[in-house]
Amino acid sequence: MAEPRISSIDGKLAEEFAVPSHVEEVKEKMAAFASFHAEAGRKVVLITSGGTKVPLESRTVRFLDNFSSGRRGASSAEYFIDSGYAVIFLHRHRSLYPYTRMFLTINMLDALEFQGGGAPGNTGEVVVNQQVLPNIAKVLKRYEEVKKSRLLLPIEFSTLSEYLHLLKAAAQALSKIGSKAMFYLAAAVSDFYIPASEMPEHKIQSSNGPLQVRLSMKMVPKILSPLVKEWAPQAFVISFKLETDASILLDKARRALDTYRHQAVVANVLDSRRGYVVVVTLETQAELILTEEDVKNEVEIEERIVSNLTSAHDNFITQQVA
Amino acid sequence: MAEPRISSIDGKLAEEFAVPSHVEEVKEKMAAFASFHAEAGRKVVLITSGGTKVPLESRTVRFLDNFSSGRRGASSAEYFIDSGYAVIFLHRHRSLYPYTRMFLTINMLDALEFQGGGAPGNTGEVVVNQQVLPNIAKVLKRYEEVKKSRLLLPIEFSTLSEYLHLLKAAAQALSKIGSKAMFYLAAAVSDFYIPASEMPEHKIQSSNGPLQVRLSMKMVPKILSPLVKEWAPQAFVISFKLETDASILLDKARRALDTYRHQAVVANVLDSRRGYVVVVTLETQAELILTEEDVKNEVEIEERIVSNLTSAHDNFITQQVA
Repeated sequence: MAEPRISSIDGKLAEEFAVPSHVEEVKEKMAAFASFHAEAGRKVVLITSGGTKVPLESRTVRFLDNFSSGRRGASSAEYFIDSGYAVIFLHRHRSLYPYTRMFLTINMLDALEFQGGGAPGNTGEVVVNQQVLPNIAKVLKRYEEVKKSRLLLPIEFSTLSEYLHLLKAAAQALSKIGSKAMFYLAAAVSDFYIPASEMPEHKIQSSNGPLQVRLSMKMVPKILSPLVKEWAPQAFVISFKLETDASILLDKARRALDTYRHQAVVANVLDSRRGYVVVVTLETQAELILTEEDVKNEVEIEERIVSNLTSAHDNFITQQVA
Repeated sequence: MAEPRISSIDGKLAEEFAVPSHVEEVKEKMAAFASFHAEAGRKVVLITSGGTKVPLESRTVRFLDNFSSGRRGASSAEYFIDSGYAVIFLHRHRSLYPYTRMFLTINMLDALEFQGGGAPGNTGEVVVNQQVLPNIAKVLKRYEEVKKSRLLLPIEFSTLSEYLHLLKAAAQALSKIGSKAMFYLAAAVSDFYIPASEMPEHKIQSSNGPLQVRLSMKMVPKILSPLVKEWAPQAFVISFKLETDASILLDKARRALDTYRHQAVVANVLDSRRGYVVVVTLETQAELILTEEDVKNEVEIEERIVSNLTSAHDNFITQQVA
């Protein structure tokens, strides 16, 4: 695919994707966060996580979505923080969140009980049953430490438009700290959208058939191009490539590197993504695999991905300085 | 729109919508639940809640979704239980759930603290901060009562196929208790789908453009028709109509009643759905409205909807007996 003209993308963003009202305020927040931690000698990673929502109607009832629980982004955020990074977590509203992943699989009320088991009414103590949530004390402690040291800045998006504009704002905010910034673009971003101008205002009437939905879907501009060349040219940029067909995966990863000239692609296949990824750079190709032993010990693949990328980032910074 | 032939729908269901492996087991569970409570003199309501997921690829990365947090279904379930009903809660995986709605808007870790505020490590007591969750004790108590008396049977779906087959199973299971069964069909069901036979196996390549997505979307069969006429002919059936355009709402509600001959349509407009609905029957039309006073007192519109429908259901049962 031909590389899109950058200026045209900036134009498209302004015209065809509604600008979130709070984007400038968020941008300042991210810039302040980045400088604060960079001055403290920390590297800063921007993680995108979760799927984008693409409205099919301007008063939206129906939308196109991408499969993503946000698990990879949320667990990676924890490992980046453990590796000394400050994290801007640009995530889909209600996708998985660092340190709270455990709550997703259970009904919280099943993990709570009254102190002493009596039925006290409103004044009673409500405690967590640590048989149900064995790690809760450890996780809560870690969460409070991270909160206290302000190492995690959460930013939410829901729609594709919000994602695109907030990512641009983040890139511009992080450009101030140069090569100390990493972009870890793990979100599942839609390739298709309907420009606001062509979007039906009201709920598409099924009696009309799906015609309206079909007519006006366009390709989403490849945001990686301006991010790498314009918005944050000194940053260390990682994109993700998820395919269901392993045979085309590495080829697509290499083509992405050739097209956008960023630093690495984390390539993975839908069915095996929890246990196997390939980190592809222009020169190298590193397979990261979880053994059965690892799985038994509850090692997560994100720990390996993050450790691979943080050392690559260190080398990258040294080269820039040299 | 012409009324679809019933037999054709049963055929379509079998052919074009993958049958969930657990459907028979769930059906027996629902039948046992219904008889148990009917024998105890309780009415039983089946609530559908949340949006349906429509895969665009058979190893799904992308899907079409319907806007729905599941709030209406989850809060209605609580009011039905308060009104003496047993509830089968057929809901979208991870949509809002009865009694746990409060957890959605907060990060649970922000509501937890160590007993006495010390940093105890793994053995410490973790308690809920009741300044953050003021109603937690009351809600937990109610939740445990409901669990103990087995008044709530949760069943999950994610895809449109699961929804359709599980709803059919529910209808057949509830037919055994005749007019004591209510169907409260609040789920946001897609009108469009791609038959398994025509679905691309792998992730649609954006380099091909959105063509494949567009070619093969079909209309979802109108499940209300066989539900009312075949599967549960004696039941009290409520459908929901959500529009963004108020001007066509009542007309569409009346047309639905004419087409399917069920008992009522709860009609609502997207922007005002939390404070205003119209319950439309063949003979009547009841506007339910929350006043500012109601909103201040945290009255929910679902309380009004449920109280309107439960008395209508009682009249319905009496008429059947007479």
